[in-house]
Parts: sequence; C-alpha cells; structure tokens
Amino acid sequence: MRATFLHAPGDVRVEEIDDPKIIEPTDAIIRLAAACVCGSDLWPYRGVESVDEPMPMGHEYVGVVEEVGGEVTTIKPGQFVVGSFVASDGTCEICRSGYPSSCAHRVFMSQVGTQSERARIPWADGTLVATPGTPEPDLIPSLLAASDVLGTGWFGAVAADAGPGKTVAVVGDGAVGLLAVLAAKQLGAERIIAMSRHEARQKLAREFGATDIVTERGDEGVARIKELTGGLGAHSVVEAVGTQESMHQAIGSTRAGGHVGFVGVSHDVSLSGEDLFFSQVNLLGGPAPVRRFLPELIDLIWQRKIDPGKVFDLALPLDQAAEAYKAMDERRAIKALLRV
Amino acid sequence: MRATFLHAPGDVRVEEIDDPKIIEPTDAIIRLAAACVCGSDLWPYRGVESVDEPMPMGHEYVGVVEEVGGEVTTIKPGQFVVGSFVASDGTCEICRSGYPSSCAHRVFMSQVGTQSERARIPWADGTLVATPGTPEPDLIPSLLAASDVLGTGWFGAVAADAGPGKTVAVVGDGAVGLLAVLAAKQLGAERIIAMSRHEARQKLAREFGATDIVTERGDEGVARIKELTGGLGAHSVVEAVGTQESMHQAIGSTRAGGHVGFVGVSHDVSLSGEDLFFSQVNLLGGPAPVRRFLPELIDLIWQRKIDPGKVFDLALPLDQAAEAYKAMDERRAIKALLRV
Repeated sequence: MRATFLHAPGDVRVEEIDDPKIIEPTDAIIRLAAACVCGSDLWPYRGVESVDEPMPMGHEYVGVVEEVGGEVTTIKPGQFVVGSFVASDGTCEICRSGYPSSCAHRVFMSQVGTQSERARIPWADGTLVATPGTPEPDLIPSLLAASDVLGTGWFGAVAADAGPGKTVAVVGDGAVGLLAVLAAKQLGAERIIAMSRHEARQKLAREFGATDIVTERGDEGVARIKELTGGLGAHSVVEAVGTQESMHQAIGSTRAGGHVGFVGVSHDVSLSGEDLFFSQVNLLGGPAPVRRFLPELIDLIWQRKIDPGKVFDLALPLDQAAEAYKAMDERRAIKALLRV
Repeated sequence: MRATFLHAPGDVRVEEIDDPKIIEPTDAIIRLAAACVCGSDLWPYRGVESVDEPMPMGHEYVGVVEEVGGEVTTIKPGQFVVGSFVASDGTCEICRSGYPSSCAHRVFMSQVGTQSERARIPWADGTLVATPGTPEPDLIPSLLAASDVLGTGWFGAVAADAGPGKTVAVVGDGAVGLLAVLAAKQLGAERIIAMSRHEARQKLAREFGATDIVTERGDEGVARIKELTGGLGAHSVVEAVGTQESMHQAIGSTRAGGHVGFVGVSHDVSLSGEDLFFSQVNLLGGPAPVRRFLPELIDLIWQRKIDPGKVFDLALPLDQAAEAYKAMDERRAIKALLRV
C-alpha cells in the first residue's frame, strides 16, 4: 500500500510499503475512506520537532474495517468506523473517567501513521465507533474531522466550560480553533469571539457561530477582549495554538474564576506560577479525549446538524501529500484532505 | 493602639500608632478579639519578599465592630464578625460568581495590617460575616482560622474537587495543608493522604481526617502516591506550599483528569506547558475566595462540628509578636495566635 513519510523537515514522500497486519489480538485493520493533514503534523514538517528517521505521518482516520483480531468483540469487518487519534483500551479507570487520551495503554496514532491506504488500529473495541451505516460520500470529511480536529476543538470548548450565558473566546484560527467555535455554539454559548486576522477563516468562524472577530494579538488582543467583556475577560477561552504568546493571550483574556481549555500542543511554553496564581483561572488541556465525544459528534454529523468538514478547503490525492503539507504550511489551506 | 510592623527581614516590632479611622463610607472599624501569624507572613520575614519600608503585618482577624461608615447597611456596631483576608465589594460580577478574592475593588488586608488592636476593614458589607452572637472564648481561635487558613485550605480542597469516592493528597503540612485535610474530610473524601515528615503535624493531620501519611518528597513522594493509588495518582491534590518542588510534586501526584488546587502563594515557580499538557490535570489556584465559604464555615464552627483552631499550638500576647514569628520560622509552632 501507499503511505506517507516525513524524511526530513519539508521532505514529505508517499511510498509503497507492506500492508499492515494484525499484531495484537485487540487490533483492527481498516481501509481508509480519506486521510488528512493536521496542524500538529506541521511541527516536525517545520523542524520544530526533530526528525531523526523517516516518520510515518498522519493520525486522523475514517474507513471500513477489513479485519479484526481474535479478542475484538464489538467492532466487525465491513463496519464504517471513526476513531480517535489516540487509541485507548476503553476499560481502565482513566478511560472510564472520561480521559481515554491518557489511558495507561494508549497508543498515539501518529506513531502508526494514517496518511495511507490502510492502517492498524490498536485497541479496536476501545478506540473505534461504528457509524449507523455506510455514510453518504459528502459526510466523509465531517466524520474524518471528528477523529481529531472536531474532537479536539470540542474538548477545548468543554474544558473551557463553554455553555449557556457564557462568553467564549477562541485563540487560534486553524481548523481546531474554528471547530472550537462550532463546539461553543453547539454547547449553547451566548457570545463567541474568534481571534483571527485571516479573512477566509473569519468568514468560516462566523458560519460556525462566531458573534465577534478580534484581529489584535498578544497584549493588544487581551485588551480588546477585556474591552468587549466589561473589563473582566471572557468566561471561557480556548487556546488552539500551543505557543508562549497564545497561552499568555488565552490566560490573560480569561476572567478570574473562568476557564481556559488549552488544546494546542505546547511547544517551549513556560508559565509563571505567580501569574497563574493571581489570574485565578481554571486550566485544563492536553491531548483531547476524543473517544468520549465521538458518539455524540457522529450523531450530530449523521443528522446533518453540524458540518465540520467545511474546514477542509483543499482536497488532493494521497500521492500529492507533499503539496498538501506545503499549502498548510504556507497557510494557503486551513486543512487538507487526502483522497485515498 | 499597638500594631505590628516588619522593619527588615527578621525584625518584627510592635509599635504604638494612631487608631484607625473610617476613610471610605463603606469601611468598618473592628476591635480585634485575637490576631495571628500566617505562613505567608514568613515570606517577607525570611527576606524572600523584599521589605523596603516598615510593613504593617497581618491579614487575619475576628472581632467586634466598633464603628461603620455611612454606606454600610448590613454590618452594625456591636456585632462579632469574621472577615476574609481579602476585602471585596460583594456586588461585582466576579464576587457574585464566587471569586471575591479577585474582586475588581479588592483590598488585600495585608496592606492594612491586622496584627493590631484595631483594624479598618474596607467594603464591610461585602467582606464581613456576623456570627450568630458573641462567641464563647474557646471558639475564637477557630473563627480566626476561618478568616484565612481554614478558608484557604477549604478552597484548596474545593479547587481539587475533593468529595465522596475521591482520594485526596495534600502537599504541605503547614496550617493550610492541615486544614485542607479537615476540609477534604468534611467534603466527604474517601481517602486522605497527608504528606508530612513532622510528627506533631502528622498527628494533627490524622485528627483532622488523614487516612495515610507519606513522608517522602519530590519524585519519591510522587512515586509513593502512585503506589498508594494503583499507579494512577490521586484524584485530588491540594498544594499548600508555593515552591517549584511542591507544585511539581502536586501535579505529578495527580491522575489524568484529576484536579490540583494550589493555594500556596507561588514564589519563583515556573511550569512547563508541555508537562501541563501531557499531565492533563485540572489546575485552579490563587488567593482563596474565603468570603464564599464563610457562612458555612462559621456554622460548622458554631455547631462545634469542626475545630480548626487546633492549628494554633502557640498563643502569645501581641507584644511578643516577634517571638511568634521566630517560633513559626523555626517550625517550633504550626501557627501562633496573638492575644490582643
């Protein structure tokens, strides 16, 4: 089969490799219906994370189950499935408490790679959720989004305690940030402020439910959010970037007693204990426990109540994965889908 | 009247100054029934915080109202009152949301000083809570504790989401940590692990409800907590010290999806965004919103259901404030009460 590898920063290649096989009796093999590139794939692509040897790329996936291991009981060949970007056993105390992405037996799918024709999914029963049937082709992008960006934006909004009566601000206008806007809207937020200076993204943010757009960043962005919230800051802030500036912007934009949900993978971020102490905000972040939300997200997509697939503004054949990375790196595309 | 000042690290003096007067129409003047020394008073005493000019000391207080300003409506002369160590207007959106210690108009009582015979309390209506009557003398230490250490330990336990079915660990065996143990017990925690290597404090922790004692610190302390919790960490951890080591110990001892309540005033603490991201713990800290809890705490004390005053293991006349500081600095006393 064909699969995507990163050989060095900027060097993406689609190569022929052996088909994946069942290794553990809890595995499933799926044939992907579509793959895609994530903002977090850009960290090693840009050399921010080191690339010591060719890395299998991709961690988002939807597709049809081809084969399951001997201990898999709920997932069956022929089912169309969506899974989280973190495989989890689904049975441990951490999974049961709603944090499958921190499962003691978790496997980050980025170690497996899913920008490929097929993929081995560990812990199939704990990780995969079958759709009610074979989806219409136009639903596939949205179902694929549920695997990570939608689930991650959703977790950001849940961690930020978005809900009725709340003002929610979203730092970051990538696909995750935009889908955090969608999530905040679904969760009933009263006012949703998207922080973006990019016209196409502002437009999509408004489609997803943003009521206000703030173009300022850093201290000026914080000042603008305070100005819009009676000097207090937002109740709920989603951080969807992962840099020092964006974390400061998120914490500074939150009122005392408010909540910050941070889902941008932190890179060289250092937080002052004193600032955290005196800001008195609730902080929760990390790899999104997407599996917790999947049944609800699949249902919303299946009923066509949400259309998160709109974040894919570029679709290319798998063979052109290199161009997909380039377009996202240059911010020509919000998110690129790969047809397999 | 007599009042306590810190002239330089280690140099505590009780001096004669003018009686306080009503300045704002929202002020009250109280005659203190007792004063005390807080762990946080030791930061400037030890020179960790700079002392540029003589500082009025103390921020905990109980006493009888002598006079109120023209706009004070609920607090009346003659009432016995307990107040928070942060004065707050009680009417702003932040106060009403339960975070009076982050009130936009807050006044830290440490700027006023309460290790004295009388004190001016700003925002009397928003800050003070009257007891049901004049307390028996033996209740005064407990009521005084409610003003800060009990309220702060309580907030730590609430921020850490202590409750039925939970395992709670407490980092720090000062008065706040010990009272976080008491709070966790009152909140219904199943198992309470006190981290202490000091025999007298271990004993008091057990009296307050600790089921386990861990003497190890740092990485060894974390390992021990994990050992006691099936490898996962505690559900709820209260941090009541404020150092880099204690914050790491607290975050490391918490399971994914668990909660850290940090109430030790942070000093030179720096947290890695990456560590916070991948630990996936809920974090909430800051100056405790004591006023939120005061009615409940006063009621528990009044009904003699809790005895937080036990943390006072030294009582001296106000004139001997210097010795009270010395005893706490040398850890000969957990907490010193000053008779006024």
